Amino acid sequence: MSIVEIIEKKKYGKHLEDNEIKEIVMGYVEGIVPDYQVAAFLMAVWFRGMDDKELSTLTDIMIHSGKTIDLSKIHGIKVDKHSSGGVADTVTIPLVPIVASLGVPVAKMSGRGLGHTGGTIDKLESIPGFRVEVPTEEFINIVNRVGGAIISQSEELVPADKKIYALRDVTGTVDSIPLIASSIMSKKIASGTDAIVLDVKVGNGAFMEDLGDALKLAEAMVRIGNSLGRKTVAYITDMNEPLGDAIGNSIEVEEGINILKGKGSKRLFEVIETLGSEMLVLGGRASDRELGKSLIREAIASGKALQKLAEIIEAQGGNKQVINDFNLLPQAKFKKDIISEKTGYISRIDTKGIGRLAQFLGAGREKKDDVIDLSCGIIFPKKLGDYIEKGQQIGTVLSNNEAKLEEALNRFNSLIEVSDTPIEPPPLIYYRVSAEGVDKLF
Amino acid sequence: MSIVEIIEKKKYGKHLEDNEIKEIVMGYVEGIVPDYQVAAFLMAVWFRGMDDKELSTLTDIMIHSGKTIDLSKIHGIKVDKHSSGGVADTVTIPLVPIVASLGVPVAKMSGRGLGHTGGTIDKLESIPGFRVEVPTEEFINIVNRVGGAIISQSEELVPADKKIYALRDVTGTVDSIPLIASSIMSKKIASGTDAIVLDVKVGNGAFMEDLGDALKLAEAMVRIGNSLGRKTVAYITDMNEPLGDAIGNSIEVEEGINILKGKGSKRLFEVIETLGSEMLVLGGRASDRELGKSLIREAIASGKALQKLAEIIEAQGGNKQVINDFNLLPQAKFKKDIISEKTGYISRIDTKGIGRLAQFLGAGREKKDDVIDLSCGIIFPKKLGDYIEKGQQIGTVLSNNEAKLEEALNRFNSLIEVSDTPIEPPPLIYYRVSAEGVDKLF
Repeated sequence: MSIVEIIEKKKYGKHLEDNEIKEIVMGYVEGIVPDYQVAAFLMAVWFRGMDDKELSTLTDIMIHSGKTIDLSKIHGIKVDKHSSGGVADTVTIPLVPIVASLGVPVAKMSGRGLGHTGGTIDKLESIPGFRVEVPTEEFINIVNRVGGAIISQSEELVPADKKIYALRDVTGTVDSIPLIASSIMSKKIASGTDAIVLDVKVGNGAFMEDLGDALKLAEAMVRIGNSLGRKTVAYITDMNEPLGDAIGNSIEVEEGINILKGKGSKRLFEVIETLGSEMLVLGGRASDRELGKSLIREAIASGKALQKLAEIIEAQGGNKQVINDFNLLPQAKFKKDIISEKTGYISRIDTKGIGRLAQFLGAGREKKDDVIDLSCGIIFPKKLGDYIEKGQQIGTVLSNNEAKLEEALNRFNSLIEVSDTPIEPPPLIYYRVSAEGVDKLF
Repeated sequence: MSIVEIIEKKKYGKHLEDNEIKEIVMGYVEGIVPDYQVAAFLMAVWFRGMDDKELSTLTDIMIHSGKTIDLSKIHGIKVDKHSSGGVADTVTIPLVPIVASLGVPVAKMSGRGLGHTGGTIDKLESIPGFRVEVPTEEFINIVNRVGGAIISQSEELVPADKKIYALRDVTGTVDSIPLIASSIMSKKIASGTDAIVLDVKVGNGAFMEDLGDALKLAEAMVRIGNSLGRKTVAYITDMNEPLGDAIGNSIEVEEGINILKGKGSKRLFEVIETLGSEMLVLGGRASDRELGKSLIREAIASGKALQKLAEIIEAQGGNKQVINDFNLLPQAKFKKDIISEKTGYISRIDTKGIGRLAQFLGAGREKKDDVIDLSCGIIFPKKLGDYIEKGQQIGTVLSNNEAKLEEALNRFNSLIEVSDTPIEPPPLIYYRVSAEGVDKLF
């Protein structure tokens, strides 16, 4: 079948066979099929979607378009976790040692921040000496010895995704659920994990603002994962306000460590507990999620999880003393209070706006190779529904540049709306999606 | 606005402004916008369509993407005619002299055949000496002196259409009504005509098999033409059987000449009369179409129209004696009867199949630069509903290659289906579409 016929089949909404998907995707990767044909195909996919079989085939072809990582030398069931990205999403740093301390190996590969969202790898680079680039063999050894490791995603995985993503970016086909789902899942599965817990963020600080779309994406990813033999569970969680209190890099490491000390944002902890208990079930450590949650609380209370983080930091070459001395992390030269200009109940937080403001300070990057400033950021512990008063300190801006600091202070208040009457904060966990179906949790 | 934003606007079904359409179309023509972005845009147009304003803007931008022809030096209202292409569609050769003989100037630019359909320019090249490439100034002079001329479409017109059409061809976006409509109308209007009569073919020998689609295309073209100041009327006519009796090149010239002698296929004549009377009304020569039809019959009966064809042939360097002596046209070496293998009423004719069979004999081309054989073809005067008997001669195959001739004879009968009971032949003229609305004519 010719490429034009494959494009037309999708255009008319007909089912594509495995070899047809392979012909266009691998043809593109190998430079045989030109980008204009793939562009037309991607737009047809945007309109027609993909059925379950097509989606699992597409993902499988993408996985095998390049090198995959073999984690079979790691003992036990490897459970990975992925977040679709948000603001103050400091989940991974405390979550990995919690789960590892309970005996489920976590071979975590993470990404860097882009746009208004942060990335775990950037945050971890705040820790003096911490190596995020670790060869696969050493990575496996660390996980086997310590129980967990967090390294930077290999650039060699899933070349099909890299090429297709770059084309989607310039052809208006980024926001397609099957294309997003196959992109995420191909990278996760190529990383060698046995099971996957997905955290799909929804709200004004997430890439998806519509709950229905987020649910569709979660369902698509869960179906892909399970059809390719990886037990996959997804949660849809709220991103209508920053999840934790800190938006930045070193300050998010601090908050992550505080979680392991039983401190830090309640909402952040609840997401960690939810995802962590699911990982413990998938990893065969807990018979159910309630037990998983008790284990997590115990791991924190006993100090086991904090101790595990210290071991991971040490194994990856970092200074584990940061756990007790935050002054070892990069510090911003200037810190200044955010003073509220309004009185009332916080009714709306422009979450993306806060992410962008942290990015403006230097905490994030616009382009892939921008250099970021690890010490700057925003601390904002107020949540939707909280009562604030004019003149009250509601947060802190940290920066190495006084002019930027002043501008951030000036802009911050416009990102918050207040109401005279009390406000019901949004739910935190909306849905759990598994092979068994969708559970509504709010 | 960035190109990605323009693509996304169309993708979401929003109205595009003039400057946005211009940015993407002219950017493509000028090599600034890459083909993969235009491919994604075209696919979005395939799904979303275009509103009237967008369509007229797109066509106008395409018209002015290159040179246009100025026919203002031709006296009177220039009326052009365009057929969407079919089998045995020998309308133009008799139509131009008929209309010209009645005082309406016809500066006709025609195309060559492609695939299963024939093209007027190929057919005219059967006439010894006939020049189809004529410089614009001479073309204008001939029309002013003789009243009509038929030349080959300039390759320099509408470069945007050439580039976009080539991309549509390889991206599965050919069958989009707004893209077809703007492609046809931009070329017609760039050719300098004042008014346009369109013949949209529908049926199993046409590019459109669905009457609803053909009607939509006709309506789109009529709206474009009228919005750009060219009175435009479209007819939707039947192509469920070859229109005339001859399928080839020199044999279609013979049939065209026979029409001017009051002979030839009745259905072919009816289409000529319908389109011609419309041209006479648009050209201000007849107050209504009925009068136009009488004038046409008179022009044929009096020999004026045949005389006009002789003048046109002579003006374009051809041997006008072909009118009286068909032996001056290229003759096939071998001719053999088609013998019916079936008895019954003809219930279905595979019109495209017959066109392809003529193409197989050498009368048509697969690729733009294939060389064709002007003398070969098929004569098949039987029509839907006609009663035929096994063993009866129902047509003739003409070829210069005996093996091909035998194969064509073998294949022909499979292109015809018969029924034991009488059959109602399909209507010939389905709709007339004008600025005033749609008239159903069957």
